[in-house]
This record gives sequence, C-alpha cells and structure tokens, in this order.
Amino acid sequence: MRCEPADGGFDLFLDDRLILSHRREAPAVFLGRGEERMAMYRGNFDIEDYVTARLPLADAAPSRQGDGWRIALAPSPAEPPLLWLTVTAEPGRSMLRVEAAAPGFNRFWLRLVAEEGERLFGGGEQMSYLDLSGRRFPMWTSEPGVGRDKTTAITFEADRTGRAGGDYFNTNYPQPTFLSSRRYAAHVETTAYAVLDFRHRGFHEIEVWAMPERIEFFARGSIAGLVTAMADRFGRQPKLPDWAMEGAIVGLKHGAASFDTLERYVEAGAAVSALWCEDWSGVRETSFGTRLFWDWQASGTRYPDLKRRIAELGERGIRFLGYVNPYLCDDGALFREAEAKGYFATNEAGRTHLVDFGEFDCGVVDFTDPDACRWFEERVIGENMLDLGLSGWMADFGEYLPIDLHLKNGADPRLMHNLWPVLWGAVNARAVEKRGRTGDVVFFMRAGYSGIQAHCPLVWAGDQSVDFSRHDGLVTAIVGALSSGLLGNAYHHSDIGGYTSLFGNLRTPELIMRWAEMAAFTPVMRSHEGNRPKQNLQIHEDGAVLAHFARMTRIHRALLPYLSSLRDEAAEKGWPLQRPLFFHHEEDRRCFEVFDAYLFGRDMLVAPVWKAGETRWTTYLPQGETWVHLWSGETFAGGGEVTVEAPIGAPPVFWRQGSAFAACFEALRRL
Amino acid sequence: MRCEPADGGFDLFLDDRLILSHRREAPAVFLGRGEERMAMYRGNFDIEDYVTARLPLADAAPSRQGDGWRIALAPSPAEPPLLWLTVTAEPGRSMLRVEAAAPGFNRFWLRLVAEEGERLFGGGEQMSYLDLSGRRFPMWTSEPGVGRDKTTAITFEADRTGRAGGDYFNTNYPQPTFLSSRRYAAHVETTAYAVLDFRHRGFHEIEVWAMPERIEFFARGSIAGLVTAMADRFGRQPKLPDWAMEGAIVGLKHGAASFDTLERYVEAGAAVSALWCEDWSGVRETSFGTRLFWDWQASGTRYPDLKRRIAELGERGIRFLGYVNPYLCDDGALFREAEAKGYFATNEAGRTHLVDFGEFDCGVVDFTDPDACRWFEERVIGENMLDLGLSGWMADFGEYLPIDLHLKNGADPRLMHNLWPVLWGAVNARAVEKRGRTGDVVFFMRAGYSGIQAHCPLVWAGDQSVDFSRHDGLVTAIVGALSSGLLGNAYHHSDIGGYTSLFGNLRTPELIMRWAEMAAFTPVMRSHEGNRPKQNLQIHEDGAVLAHFARMTRIHRALLPYLSSLRDEAAEKGWPLQRPLFFHHEEDRRCFEVFDAYLFGRDMLVAPVWKAGETRWTTYLPQGETWVHLWSGETFAGGGEVTVEAPIGAPPVFWRQGSAFAACFEALRRL
Repeated sequence: MRCEPADGGFDLFLDDRLILSHRREAPAVFLGRGEERMAMYRGNFDIEDYVTARLPLADAAPSRQGDGWRIALAPSPAEPPLLWLTVTAEPGRSMLRVEAAAPGFNRFWLRLVAEEGERLFGGGEQMSYLDLSGRRFPMWTSEPGVGRDKTTAITFEADRTGRAGGDYFNTNYPQPTFLSSRRYAAHVETTAYAVLDFRHRGFHEIEVWAMPERIEFFARGSIAGLVTAMADRFGRQPKLPDWAMEGAIVGLKHGAASFDTLERYVEAGAAVSALWCEDWSGVRETSFGTRLFWDWQASGTRYPDLKRRIAELGERGIRFLGYVNPYLCDDGALFREAEAKGYFATNEAGRTHLVDFGEFDCGVVDFTDPDACRWFEERVIGENMLDLGLSGWMADFGEYLPIDLHLKNGADPRLMHNLWPVLWGAVNARAVEKRGRTGDVVFFMRAGYSGIQAHCPLVWAGDQSVDFSRHDGLVTAIVGALSSGLLGNAYHHSDIGGYTSLFGNLRTPELIMRWAEMAAFTPVMRSHEGNRPKQNLQIHEDGAVLAHFARMTRIHRALLPYLSSLRDEAAEKGWPLQRPLFFHHEEDRRCFEVFDAYLFGRDMLVAPVWKAGETRWTTYLPQGETWVHLWSGETFAGGGEVTVEAPIGAPPVFWRQGSAFAACFEALRRL
Repeated sequence: MRCEPADGGFDLFLDDRLILSHRREAPAVFLGRGEERMAMYRGNFDIEDYVTARLPLADAAPSRQGDGWRIALAPSPAEPPLLWLTVTAEPGRSMLRVEAAAPGFNRFWLRLVAEEGERLFGGGEQMSYLDLSGRRFPMWTSEPGVGRDKTTAITFEADRTGRAGGDYFNTNYPQPTFLSSRRYAAHVETTAYAVLDFRHRGFHEIEVWAMPERIEFFARGSIAGLVTAMADRFGRQPKLPDWAMEGAIVGLKHGAASFDTLERYVEAGAAVSALWCEDWSGVRETSFGTRLFWDWQASGTRYPDLKRRIAELGERGIRFLGYVNPYLCDDGALFREAEAKGYFATNEAGRTHLVDFGEFDCGVVDFTDPDACRWFEERVIGENMLDLGLSGWMADFGEYLPIDLHLKNGADPRLMHNLWPVLWGAVNARAVEKRGRTGDVVFFMRAGYSGIQAHCPLVWAGDQSVDFSRHDGLVTAIVGALSSGLLGNAYHHSDIGGYTSLFGNLRTPELIMRWAEMAAFTPVMRSHEGNRPKQNLQIHEDGAVLAHFARMTRIHRALLPYLSSLRDEAAEKGWPLQRPLFFHHEEDRRCFEVFDAYLFGRDMLVAPVWKAGETRWTTYLPQGETWVHLWSGETFAGGGEVTVEAPIGAPPVFWRQGSAFAACFEALRRL
C-alpha cells in the first residue's frame, strides 16, 4: 500500500487503486464514544447505539517509518493526535494498524473510497443479499431471524411473540471482510460489534465499537485470486471425504425407529451416506414441543444399544451422525461434572451463569478456559461421540454468548461474542484431530466469524423457513453459499426442505422436491425433519417425494468424479464449490447481478427454481462459453438470458461445452 | 436564571433548581453535523439521520454580560469557540440564546439535569404517553399512524400496505416544550426537526437539527402555575361559545339526506348544537372509496340550496359546520384560480408542486406568501364558507408539507414543515376574525406546533382507530387532551366512536357508547361517521346507541353552568378543561401515575372505561378530598383506588364534595 501525502491530507493506494482519501475538509477517519444498549432474547439481539461523540480527525500528519508510513491524526492542528495509523505491507497483504493515542474512545469509523457502479461481496454468510452495495450490514453473530422481512406476516408474528423476526442482515455468521469488484478485499481485524455501511455515495464506511487492531487489504488480479487470498488468510477446510458426497445424509429423529425409517430410503433406491439422528442424546417434552436433551451422551432409552447399531450400519457403508452444542442442561450428568470442575462461565455472584432455553436452563462451557476446552474435546466429543462411532454431527449454536457473564480469561464478553463461534469450531476441530479423524469426520456449523474457515469443515445455511420466501426460503441457501464461499468457505449445504415451521407455515411436497434438486448440486445433500416433524411432510411419507429424492441422491453420487476435482481445487486454491457467476466471468458485468444462480465449479451452472408454481425458469448464462442444458442437451451461447422447461425433477442446470467432465454430466440425464 | 462558574465548567440554576451542569469531563453541549434522509408517504415519514460529527464542547468560558452571562464553548482550550450561549432573564422567563460561532454545523444537543423520579409532560399532543420519562420523542408533525403499536396486526398491515402504522411518538401536533415535576418548563424555540430524549440517567437530552434560536425556561411554584405560563407564552384560545357546549355536533356526510338523518337525533331527544357535513363541497369516487372533493365551495349537486337550509337550521338553534384543508385539487375551480395567481408552492421546474393524495393531485397553497393567505382567508373561507353561513369546520391536515418544494419566502421546507400547522391555523383564525366571528365560529384542528394555541380554538384528537386499543383507541383521546392541555390548549375533543376502520376493524355499539359517555365530560361532543361509514355502525342505526347518545348529550348540556366557569378559568389562567390528576394534587405523588383519568375542572374526576367488556372500573382518587360517585352518590375518601360499578351509561365520574356546582352534578343523575 502506497501513501501519498497531499495538501491537507493523504491518499492510500493499493497498486493503482485509490483506497482511502483523507482531506481536512473531507476526513476519512473518525473517533468517538458510544454507549450501546444490547438486549438478547434467545439469540436475537436488540441493539441500539447512543453516540455521544464523533470527532472527525481532520488533521493528518503522515511521516515515513521504515518502508511504510505512520500517520498522526488529530481533530485540528491545535490538538495533539488522538490516533495513529501505521501503513505496512507484506507480500500479498497491506495493513493499516490502528492505535488510539488517547484513552476513552470506543468508536472508530473509517471511510474507504467508493466508486460508481462498484459491487461489494462477503460480509460473512449473508442470507439476503450477495451484492452488499447500497445497504448496511451490522456484524454481530445472532439468530438469523424467522421471516427476515418486515413486510411478511411470519416476520411480524415472530417479532411479536419472540422478537425473533430478524432482518436482511441478521446472520449466524457475520465477518467484517468484503471483496470489491475493484479487485481488492478489505478485512477488519476485530471481534467487536462492527458495521459495513455501503449506502453512501463516494465512500464505504466501516464502523467498529472498539479500536480495531488493523484493517487488512488484499489486491489481486482477479476475484478468484482474491478468494484464494481469503482462503490463505482465514484457513482451509480439510478435504471433504468421499463418503459425505456419495449419497445423502438422512436426518431422522424419532429414536431407534429412525433406523427402520432409514430403510425406506434405501428401499426407494436412495444413495444414503449417513443416518443423522439429532436426538441421539435423548429428548425432553416442553410446552413448546419435544426438545433435544442437552447432555451429550447416547441416550440408552431412546437409542438402546446404539454403539452396536452404528457399527452394523457402518458395515453397510452408512455412517451415523449426531448433534452437539456448547451448552449443558442443568439436569444432565455432564452439567454436574463441568460445574464441579468450574468449567462454566459465571455470573456476578461467581456461580454458574444459567441461560434459559425455554423451560430448561443451561450452563455455558467457558471456551476461554483451556482446561474446559480440553474436557469438552476429550470427555464430551472424544469419549461420548467419536468413541461411540459417530462420523460427524451438527455443531449447533455458537451465537448465543450472553454479554453479561464472566469468562475465565477476564475478557469483555462483548468482545468475545463474535469470536465464540470460532472458539466453538476450534473445540470441535481439535476433538476430531485428537482422534486422528480430520478429513473423515464431518461436523457442520451455522455460526461463524473471521477464522471459522480454519476449523469448520462444512458450513450449513442455518434455519430457513419451510417456504419459498425471498428472505427466509430456499433462495437464501444460495446467497449464503455464495457469500460465505467468497471468504474461503469451500463447502456449504442446507437443510433440504427448510427447518422452521411456525405460525401455520408448512412444508409442501413441491418445496421439498425443489430443495432436494438444488441440494443435488451442492457439496452435501442432507435432509432435516424440521422443528415440527409431526405437523410437516417428511420425505419418506410421500411416495413421489421419496422417489424424487432418491433420484437426486443418485445424481449427486454420480457427480463424485467432478466433485472430487473441485475438492482438489478447494484444497489448492481455496475456491468454493459454489461460486457466483462472476467468479469466472468478471469481464461480463451482467454476471454481477445474479444472486440466485451459481457456478458449481467452473463447468456447471445451476439456477435453482426458488419460487412456487413454476414450470419454466429464466436465468442468465455468462458470455464467452457455450452452455449445454443438462436435461435436453440443447446448447445456448452465453451472454444472454435463457428460458428452459423446469418441471420438478429437471432443475435448470447447464454445463460448459468442452468440459473434461462432459461424459459425467451427460450420464446424469439417464439417472 | 443564575449562572455559577465552576471548576472546568458552569452550572445554571432556575431559582434553586440545578437545570444544567457543564463540566469538561461531562459536557452538556454538543455541536455536530448530520445528513438526514426523510421520505414522506402520504403524511407518514421515514426519517433517518447520519451523524457525521458530534463534538462535545468540553471547554466553557462563562463571562458576565450585563445582567446575564455569555458562555463561549469550544471542543478544547486550544480551539476557538464554536458556540455561544447567552443567559438572559426577563420576568417569568429565562432564556439561553444559542449562536453558532462557526459555520457548517446543523446538529445541536443540550443536556439538562435529570433527577431520579422526575416526571416529564408535554411534547405537544402526545397520544400514547402522558409521562414522557424513559422515552424518546421526535418532534415532527405527521400522520399519527394507524395502530401505533408494532405488536398489533393493524399496525403491521398499515405499515405493510402504506408505511402508515406509526409508533407511540407519532403525532399531528408535536411541540418541543415540556413540563417537569420539578416545577419548571423548558421550551425549544425552533421549527427544525427536534428530539426530546428522556431515556438517560442523569440528564435529558434535547436534539435539534439546526441551531435553535433559544431554549426558554419557566419556573413557577406549581404545575398549574406553569400551565398558565405556557398559555401566556403560546397564546389563549377565544372562549368556547355556549352553542358548542349546549349539545352535540352531529357528523353526517351523506349529502342533503344528512338533514333528514339529523332529525332522527332530534326526535330521539338529543341536544344537537350543530350538523357537521364534511362533504359539503362534494365528493369523488376513487378505488379507495368515496373521498371529499377538495375544492372548497358548496356543492350544488350534493347539497342543493345549502344556504337556505343552513339558515332554516339556524332558526331552530342548530348550526352548520363544514370542512376545509390547505390543499386544492387540480380538477377544481379554486385550483385554477390559485394557480393563475401563483399562490401554490412550486417544484424544481417552477411549476405548481402537485401532491398525490390517492388518485387525485393537489396544489399546496403557499402560506409563506401573504397574498396567498389573504386570498384563502377572504375568497375561500370568507366568501365560500362564512358567508354561506358556516359556524365552524374541521380545519384538516397541516402535517403534509413536503420537504422538496419551493416556497415564496425562500425558506427551507424542512424548517417550515413543523410551522405549517401554525400558519394554517393562523389563516383560519384571521379569516374568522375578518368577519368578526372570533369566539362564535369554532374550527377544530388536529395538527399543531408551538404557537398553535394562539390560533386554534379547539383541538381535535385526530384519527383514532375504531377500537379500544392502548395506542390508537379511545384512551389516546384522553392522553392527547391532557398532554396538549398542559401546554395551554384549553379545549380538546375527539371523534365519538373513532375514525379509522381498516383491515376489518369495525365499530361496535359498545365502543360508540363508551366514547360518547366520555365525550359528555369533555368540552365538546362531536360524532363522526368515520372513514368507512357504510361498513361501520352509525349512532342513528341502532336504537339503543342513539338513546344512549341522546342522554349523554343532555348530560353534557346540563353541565353548561360548570363548563362556563371552566371557560372563565381558561380565559383567565389558561387552564385546560381536562387536567391530569396531579394538576391540583401535586403533593399526591400517585396522581402522577394516572394517564387514563382526568379532572374535568377542579371539581370533577372522570375515569372513562377504555377497555371492552368491563362492567366495573377501578381508578385512583386524589388525596385530601372526598369524592362523590356521580351515579350512586356514594362517597369515597381520596388517597386510594376505588372500584365502582360502571355499566354502559354510567361512566366512572366523581365530583368533589363541597363543590359550588354540587347541585348541578346531583341533577345529572336524573337525566
């Protein structure tokens, strides 16, 4: 990064890109004080800031320091500096180190240059918008919301009954990192609440509720190159094992009977890679319905003789998956053990801080305590899960760290809240590593933050509503895959059929089938019974849905050779399997407008039908290639929109003429 | 006001009250810059501020200036002052004049001292909360909202379909003036968007989106004394004429047939003071339903021979009222006349700025142009309304001044928006005055701002929903009366039965009757057919409702001697007829908690039943008096809650034992 002092300020360049421009009359740096109000309601946050001071640091004095620059910033020439920015560079990464020169400030704003027509991407796993331009994105891990659209009745009801409706920016996995169509990326190194604000003309504004350590900048010749830089920076996932791609993970949770139900999938000809039973550790009945029992050991009553049954399944090549989260219910055995050892975060009084999850209370295992981590890794995940024979699990939650508890490391929980998913991911990853199962065991997470990439082998898109809605339905799983993928998360998947059924919103056969036929063209297919299994249609309850699902699992399995090549690419270049159209077609500006279709690797384009009642579907095909419609074999020149027949069972999928995998793709038509 | 320099700051005292305390480490004054976004949707505003600078003016240098003080304020001792505050005093009023010492600032914040347990009142006509403490109140005249409670389905639907749901603070009549239980009042002299923020511990924060001219302070020995000070400051209403209190104003709007319908009220034994026909100038059919024709002259087709009919009614002692607002529809005759004379506000292109009111467009008469005012006063109100024989009207709207038009006086419409209701009120008042009818003609307004008191003879509570809801139903008419009354608006009333029927919300007989029996104990009884007359029950359509209404009008009429004494009190002391319990009982702290009951003059306490399905009602009676239950004659010692039978027809009303009007009150039982 190059600093050029200018009259009354300075400019920062990343190669030839003007990234930051500071002038006395148009300052780019602001320092201030704020008093936030944060209230948590079961993972949903009500956050408001009261900014009592915001000082434009108009006066800038840059000076040479070694190879770089050090810039002193003050409100006016008459004042001493309040902030220092230090510009340094290392191969492939430039940094702007931030240091307060005076105490008492807890708000920081930085303006980066915005260009007309610039597109912005990332921000973690964003569920509503792939292109962030024109909007404001708070960075705070939370429940994603139910409905996520203040104009829908479901959002209203969720807000009214539990403040749980959410909005377009709510996500389990925020990350203050973005990619610009100007072929640079910026990352804010902080764990504090932050905001990426792309609504302004002429500048992007980064807001941080603390002094960030630094802002990192990455410039590359292409967006694909930037994604590699992100993967290099934040970590690579282990290669996804073959087993996870060779069929579907079937989610069932009705106790030992789940084993019997699974046979219906097998009999229907489904390729089944695993049986996933969330309820492996038992359940409890509450007035809200049946809930899992949060004491992470096999339930002998709900799953008698589980170890043997897992082994039997394994002999047939079918894995068994479970469920875990970072809480322990206070009526479980592990709670007593952890409490005795002092592994829980505490309250004011020094006692275990209990979190109400709805008619049961839980302790929060304190992951700032290395002993607590080791205990959870070895005693809970190691002994109770891996040694039982589990090949993976949903590593749920991570977003709920209350901001009023006491942690072993003494840190402000407001600064640990965003980091918690990463600590949680690391606990899971280390537990797997300790048994030497990295790259074989697959756990999947919805929560994340900067650095989760190094720990979480598979992102799951969280809890969509069981519908086709724009902001909480099927399409958000696409947006989530693409946005998180650009930040180095190579593997993504979602609950087939969605999860959240509330206020009378129920799964339709069409929804399950449309979701399954999308999932066939993602790294992993996994079904979920949803939050209200009995009220909602299950795949195995409808012959046509089951047959459709089975066919999709076979298609997915048949893609293994292609997926295997993409997996190598992920390991080598950090490229996600699901990529925005512009990933390989930056020169085609129209590709930047597409958020609901994706390249599945370079050679396949998938445009899932994400609305109800459609039988034809229109999508854009990138320029410079000829695209073969998977089902009809018809070819289309890229560079325009095409409309194809898209009845259920024939999702709009195209492949690139000349692909080395043409035979593999051709073969799908016959499945 | 006394200024006492202190180490690193200063204190301002109002008598012995510490009002403002400024210290270097805890500044009370802030200056800044903001870029607001304001979008109007038919009188509903979506407003957001982006504060780019907020500078604590930590360094204060007070110096003597004449009898008062002049205080220079700067961000630091090293900086030149950015603001001057001048402390002056005149009998009964202290002032803090505000002057920017540097250009380019458009945000101002001032912190006043808050005490634990302090109560705050006023803020204009507030519909949800009488006690403002703990909440934030933006001051911007607008539609009040439909539902006004984000947890109700009606609010959600209103928001979804027209961004019209509103919130607790939305009001037609804001005023940046408040009374404190510390027996002082503060008024912000500005027309800019402002905020009264009473949420903070230790201070109240006033925010203004401009440099305010000054902050005025009033200290008195009692709250009642403060109310007199408010009335002295903002103006007094003319005495409400007898005719307006001697019976009900019956609102009907079905053309000439309204005259026939009126007879049903007369025949039922109702005391009728006036017939009010909103539709006197005609109607138009739109896809939203029947709308009034906004061309302010009698409609010969809808009301043939109206002048004669008004005169005939007058001979029977019944007045005739109409309707007017500050817009002229572009398909009306007056529009052409006003446009030819150049009396409309204009757009960028210099042409008439047209406002879409839903399938018809209107010009905005430019009340910053004295010629336009005179024309409206003489030609429209004088000739078309007063000379026709009208004795009053609803002077509707005033809240809709768009912020993107051009005004004759060249002022920023954002600074004229709040003032518009006052200009509109003045036009009406002058028109009446020119015909020598002040104190006889009664027009009523819902919109207001500081100073409306001098022009508007009767406040009307705006458009309640036709229900018992907490934030948009019957009870809000009480809160509106009490809050506006404390700022010197002596006369208040509301639409009997409410107005807004949307999304299937319909009037019940109970609602109409409960509303009518409250209205009997307000200055004026007036019915309204509502926005959807045909779908909603009308008083005359139900024998029991009509009989109940008729009885209430007789009760109201019988109160005339008492009301006449209250009218004298209003003229003399500026006291409103409807008063919070604490108005005469400051020493009884429990009175400060009551928002849903009121003193009707000193001698009567009214606790309207504002919930559905109630037959008994509990209310608090102030200490130090003995209270006689109006209907049973039972007496209660004040100082506690009492529960009385409150069937329909017997609203909970009490009178003060020993009242000079005891006989008058006693007589009501027999009506």
